[in-house]
Amino acid sequence: NDIRAYARDVVLKEIERHAADGLARADYALATGGAMVVKHSEPFLKGKGNNWFGKGATNGVHNDAEKMLKPSFGEPGQCFPLKGSSGFVEIKLRTAIIPEAITLEHVAKSVAFDRSSAPKNCRISGWLQGQNTESTSDALRIFLLAEFTYDLEKSNAQTYNVLDSASSSIVDTVRFDFTSNHGSPSHTCIYRLRVHGHEPESVAMIAMQS
Amino acid sequence: NDIRAYARDVVLKEIERHAADGLARADYALATGGAMVVKHSEPFLKGKGNNWFGKGATNGVHNDAEKMLKPSFGEPGQCFPLKGSSGFVEIKLRTAIIPEAITLEHVAKSVAFDRSSAPKNCRISGWLQGQNTESTSDALRIFLLAEFTYDLEKSNAQTYNVLDSASSSIVDTVRFDFTSNHGSPSHTCIYRLRVHGHEPESVAMIAMQS
Amino acid sequence: NDIRAYARDVVLKEIERHAADGLARADYALATGGAMVVKHSEPFLKGKGNNWFGKGATNGVHNDAEKMLKPSFGEPGQCFPLKGSSGFVEIKLRTAIIPEAITLEHVAKSVAFDRSSAPKNCRISGWLQGQNTESTSDALRIFLLAEFTYDLEKSNAQTYNVLDSASSSIVDTVRFDFTSNHGSPSHTCIYRLRVHGHEPESVAMIAMQS
Ligand SMILES: [K+]
Ligand SMILES: [K+]
Ligand SMILES: [K+]
Repeated sequence: NDIRAYARDVVLKEIERHAADGLARADYALATGGAMVVKHSEPFLKGKGNNWFGKGATNGVHNDAEKMLKPSFGEPGQCFPLKGSSGFVEIKLRTAIIPEAITLEHVAKSVAFDRSSAPKNCRISGWLQGQNTESTSDALRIFLLAEFTYDLEKSNAQTYNVLDSASSSIVDTVRFDFTSNHGSPSHTCIYRLRVHGHEPESVAMIAMQS
Repeated sequence: NDIRAYARDVVLKEIERHAADGLARADYALATGGAMVVKHSEPFLKGKGNNWFGKGATNGVHNDAEKMLKPSFGEPGQCFPLKGSSGFVEIKLRTAIIPEAITLEHVAKSVAFDRSSAPKNCRISGWLQGQNTESTSDALRIFLLAEFTYDLEKSNAQTYNVLDSASSSIVDTVRFDFTSNHGSPSHTCIYRLRVHGHEPESVAMIAMQS
Repeated sequence: NDIRAYARDVVLKEIERHAADGLARADYALATGGAMVVKHSEPFLKGKGNNWFGKGATNGVHNDAEKMLKPSFGEPGQCFPLKGSSGFVEIKLRTAIIPEAITLEHVAKSVAFDRSSAPKNCRISGWLQGQNTESTSDALRIFLLAEFTYDLEKSNAQTYNVLDSASSSIVDTVRFDFTSNHGSPSHTCIYRLRVHGHEPESVAMIAMQS
């Protein structure tokens, strides 16, 4: 009976976690939470040439880029494809945070048609942009947050802790550099990017740092 | 082995319930089932002034109000914000029913940025509007369906049974009065409202009552 | 302790399957995977007359027909309604495959308002259309893939293996004939159609067969 109660408990807890965006962890890069893509490398657009800056984009950000900041619900295709085997994405977070971990999610192996377009080697950095509208000025201190290899054999949503060296950094902008993928020469598909952490206790801390 | 079979059984049953809209219970306030928001208090619209009645609304109902009658899939932000710490919403159900229970859902604690905008004290009433287009005429009998306090420490979807005094009522319109929230002075976020019950066996019953 | 580990293992595996589109099986009829509805019988459109070919359609395919190739997430109403108690749908798959199984999904019993519109007897056939734009020419060999009865008492997503007689066929187009439904005289609701299988190892095989 104890074991029955235990089984039930495990089930309900794991389903609760699954229902809570899969990881039960706040995501400061979530589009509906107020985050946005501010920059990315050239997208891969089948049969549409290179004039995507015209109709499908705002300030150099493709209208579909937001897909990277939204759940995919296990569906192949709910991603944003970058051109080539490497690329980058810059995200303005919902608010300034002390980052703790990064999650990179691709589609699950069991439903994927082809996973050669999954990112492989990744390098994540972050900084406090604030109201500074000029891109990455010299005054900004850039933190290396994480470096990792996305492993096709592990769970499709992989979370990596932020490096100790950046454990007290405060950032509101995060850059994902995908330096290689799992084999596709034409494109690298980004299903979802998440940034976990907590808000600094006082605005004074932010002021001190910047 | 018995226990293994039992564990598997519990798991599959609970996942089935989760996959069935989380509660495995029909919702007569579901937008895709034909329900609609017919009235609500002033929405909270960041930086948009008070002229929302113009572009974003139809018959005094904001175009985003339907979000309250749709799943949120664990995403912060998939809600409709009412202005201030109290407010109300009126819903025309899919059809006339004998109401059994009410569910109020907010975002899960584990992924939320701030839950001070969650509703706290709620008062639910209902009536049979029928084809009567004039608002709440004297001829309509209004039933108090439930009064409850949304508890931030419990499951994020909380179901409350309809009061015994209303157990044989027939209603096609339900009003949610949120008389307080969990602390935010600026807005009260409504993620999802559900109304459970069953259809009366004959139309005669409706005719008798109205 | 062994049993506890086992319980946890079962839970995580089943949730993973649930998160992977419910079945953890690639679906070559998925809209976001590149499949599309190319033909269907007359839709059931409440109070909209028969002039749907005008505004709501492209090449005789209703704009909502794509709903049949997308997840429903347990929501009643996330379906495409065909007029009457029978009908058909033709789907161009993402790519040519050797088909292994067919899945027909209706809404779960626990959240449904009425399931008389569910399909009952179904006959699935397929062929290799290729670039041949003329409809079902004599040169095309049509394979009967499956015949089954959708059972309202079983799981809402029902998977049927392809007949042995078609086990080495290669198809890129699949036709679902719904020859009866579960009682509704007015319409038959199609929530989702899936086609499982694998890609042939070489294009030569396709060339040989066609
Ligand atoms: K996505
Ligand atoms: K919602
Ligand atoms: K669907």
